[in-house]
Amino acid sequence: MLGKLKEEVCEANLALVRHGLVVLTWGNASAIDRERGLVVIKPSGVSYDAMKPEDMVVVDLDGKVVEGRFRPSSDTATHLVLYKAFPTIGGVVHTHSAYATAWAQAARAIPNLGTTHADTFHTDVPVTDEIPDDRIRDAYEEATGDTIVETFRRLGIDPDETPAALAVHHGPFTWGRTVEKAVEHAVSLEAVAQMAATSLALNPTVRMNPALVEKHYARKHGPNAYYGQRDAVAPRSSGV
Amino acid sequence: MLGKLKEEVCEANLALVRHGLVVLTWGNASAIDRERGLVVIKPSGVSYDAMKPEDMVVVDLDGKVVEGRFRPSSDTATHLVLYKAFPTIGGVVHTHSAYATAWAQAARAIPNLGTTHADTFHTDVPVTDEIPDDRIRDAYEEATGDTIVETFRRLGIDPDETPAALAVHHGPFTWGRTVEKAVEHAVSLEAVAQMAATSLALNPTVRMNPALVEKHYARKHGPNAYYGQRDAVAPRSSGV
Amino acid sequence: MLGKLKEEVCEANLALVRHGLVVLTWGNASAIDRERGLVVIKPSGVSYDAMKPEDMVVVDLDGKVVEGRFRPSSDTATHLVLYKAFPTIGGVVHTHSAYATAWAQAARAIPNLGTTHADTFHTDVPVTDEIPDDRIRDAYEEATGDTIVETFRRLGIDPDETPAALAVHHGPFTWGRTVEKAVEHAVSLEAVAQMAATSLALNPTVRMNPALVEKHYARKHGPNAYYGQRDAVAPRSSGV
Amino acid sequence: MLGKLKEEVCEANLALVRHGLVVLTWGNASAIDRERGLVVIKPSGVSYDAMKPEDMVVVDLDGKVVEGRFRPSSDTATHLVLYKAFPTIGGVVHTHSAYATAWAQAARAIPNLGTTHADTFHTDVPVTDEIPDDRIRDAYEEATGDTIVETFRRLGIDPDETPAALAVHHGPFTWGRTVEKAVEHAVSLEAVAQMAATSLALNPTVRMNPALVEKHYARKHGPNAYYGQRDAVAPRSSGV
Repeated sequence: MLGKLKEEVCEANLALVRHGLVVLTWGNASAIDRERGLVVIKPSGVSYDAMKPEDMVVVDLDGKVVEGRFRPSSDTATHLVLYKAFPTIGGVVHTHSAYATAWAQAARAIPNLGTTHADTFHTDVPVTDEIPDDRIRDAYEEATGDTIVETFRRLGIDPDETPAALAVHHGPFTWGRTVEKAVEHAVSLEAVAQMAATSLALNPTVRMNPALVEKHYARKHGPNAYYGQRDAVAPRSSGV
Repeated sequence: MLGKLKEEVCEANLALVRHGLVVLTWGNASAIDRERGLVVIKPSGVSYDAMKPEDMVVVDLDGKVVEGRFRPSSDTATHLVLYKAFPTIGGVVHTHSAYATAWAQAARAIPNLGTTHADTFHTDVPVTDEIPDDRIRDAYEEATGDTIVETFRRLGIDPDETPAALAVHHGPFTWGRTVEKAVEHAVSLEAVAQMAATSLALNPTVRMNPALVEKHYARKHGPNAYYGQRDAVAPRSSGV
Repeated sequence: MLGKLKEEVCEANLALVRHGLVVLTWGNASAIDRERGLVVIKPSGVSYDAMKPEDMVVVDLDGKVVEGRFRPSSDTATHLVLYKAFPTIGGVVHTHSAYATAWAQAARAIPNLGTTHADTFHTDVPVTDEIPDDRIRDAYEEATGDTIVETFRRLGIDPDETPAALAVHHGPFTWGRTVEKAVEHAVSLEAVAQMAATSLALNPTVRMNPALVEKHYARKHGPNAYYGQRDAVAPRSSGV
Repeated sequence: MLGKLKEEVCEANLALVRHGLVVLTWGNASAIDRERGLVVIKPSGVSYDAMKPEDMVVVDLDGKVVEGRFRPSSDTATHLVLYKAFPTIGGVVHTHSAYATAWAQAARAIPNLGTTHADTFHTDVPVTDEIPDDRIRDAYEEATGDTIVETFRRLGIDPDETPAALAVHHGPFTWGRTVEKAVEHAVSLEAVAQMAATSLALNPTVRMNPALVEKHYARKHGPNAYYGQRDAVAPRSSGV
């Protein structure tokens, strides 16, 4: 079942490795079939070297395994919370990429310092609040998802416009319309995380002009977007 | 039309990837045929994996597409301003390379701290002034080019001697006699941007001896230049 | 003799190169056969390009060469101290990887700043005390091992829970149940060393919630661990 | 003539690229035949892609080209000064590797902070004094060599024990008994330059115990050295 989605999720997990975002087995990608209410996700702690689409695990939105020989990723509950809270997203990615994770460990949001950031993320990429100790002990992965959702609500950020969060002391989660887009956002996030660390070392108080933020975001994502190819002549334009 | 220039521009775009200057699709290279007044440029947002010379777009100096199935790069208007203002250049490159972009985001010029810099860039690599909000909204890409040109005029920098600028909060643009040279300058710029960030962390107030700046620049570019091979026996010496 | 262990040790040494942890010949891995009391270790200063299992050296726990054409690694005495003091470990790795070594040179323990760290190392990764000058002159490599053991005792750290130490002014040693695990821990250590350096540059006083430390360590290593695959269906899950 | 030396010099130049020390054409390696008083050096500004042994240039100790179709490296005069002043060396390497060059630009010696450094360089790696303006204008490359020699004399450093110098505002020169050793020292220098920058960011005042400096240097280079293989059974031990 869900053969095409399994291929996309397997390919997304391997793309994370190719993009240098994954050390050992530290990363996972998933995609949802909204009609059936089923999520396809990477198995937990399995090596990438021989990973195949049929190794992917299918779970329902309560986390029950519907198909698959392996245990699902230990972060599955976090993915499920995001799918339930953010109805427009089709894929979720979690990595421990070096710079995005360093910001999460520093408990700092990544400030929107340049057009590279604004092209993909409309606002600063927020860092979540601390999770209360009792929730860490009892339902930690679910609580991780909940704090992402609560942080977006508290700050009034639209998850479609800023498709990334830093789980405090932990690392980045990204999402998108498809799992391929979620991978692309993980790549972008790592790049802007590195650039922002260097920029602040060179100029600790710099901030970007708000008009420039709006322009760059709108250039790619607004109703009059004019970046990329918008029609059938560009089948390759979605390549990551 | 312009088959050879399309090959050069396609190859230049792929060279940016090989040199590690491009993440996802964030970069573009163009070249001009001065006699015909036509510019060949990368299509917007297209993946590099299968990019071919015939995918390149031909535009005139007003930005009108003369040939090509794809939309031209969204930064085309910036390239055109540079071709019109700097009459000796034959190629332009724009990237979001990690360190050069970090300096642009920090709103700081890259200081000329060493002979690596002085070999290619005669002065500090300037950062542009902020673009006024109304110009950001109405003709942003053209304004980006205009601020580069105005910054060079205000500072009295010869664009042939310092073939690079940092668009503030955005990223680097480089140029050269050919698009191949513009790529080479993008590679040099990223290297000196990284070195300068490290050097200033080790010694925030260091500056280079002006006599050494002149010597190294003249060694490669002055009337008595003696770096490289100057005659027909060195056909490979222009390789990047 | 010990053909299988020689293969594992040779493969572990080559894995260190593949993971980017080794410059020139600066690294060594070993494994112990507890029943026979014999250790298989890399030869000293030999190039990795043509290293074969039969080049590995077999020594007893007093450091006497039992088999092999080459001298054993100059760090052999350090490995032997660790095998004698930590009875559960089966493999030891030493590298000069860039970030872990930088922390050792800085004479600072790597603080446990995030879940990437806590997933593998239960506590801060300690840096050893200075070795007294007379011991440096007389039995330096043994003293290096001794200070690791003494540092773990003084701080009350369980070497099974934090399988890594920084030898002050020198570099990292890691260990594990097998030499493959010791390599995996060397990879993890370098990753968390880089992340922690960046995190402290962004927020010099940040520390992680102790409840989160416990949760992540227990998730992978406690009696109710639920990360990874726990049964026969996952033969590939130990891949590094 | 000098066919074997040309092969070694060509291979050394290509090894610099493989080790990631060279951007574009910024690097050169040479070797000397002491009996004939002839130096083999890389041609100036030639691409590495198709470089062959027969492209190497042969010069005498006055810099006169004795054989070769190409111009010799523009840094030839610096190499010649080093060969004349340091009678035991057989090879010289110059690069603009990222971290070593950043220290040279910062006008700071690389402090001996760890055993990685002490294994190859007995002292801090010195940075040269500024070159007077008139010497920059008239015989710059020779003056670069002269300041290296003068700096070593002033500080009482033995060039056989610390086979590297930082030409201020310029970059690293390394040397060795052979050009292969000079390459190995360039690799070591870049590694310790990176580590030292990170270590000082973590602990600006840290220094290494002098007894540890002596131990590690002597372990590899003293009369009782015991690192590496010392006899005929280890033909591969010199591999870089």
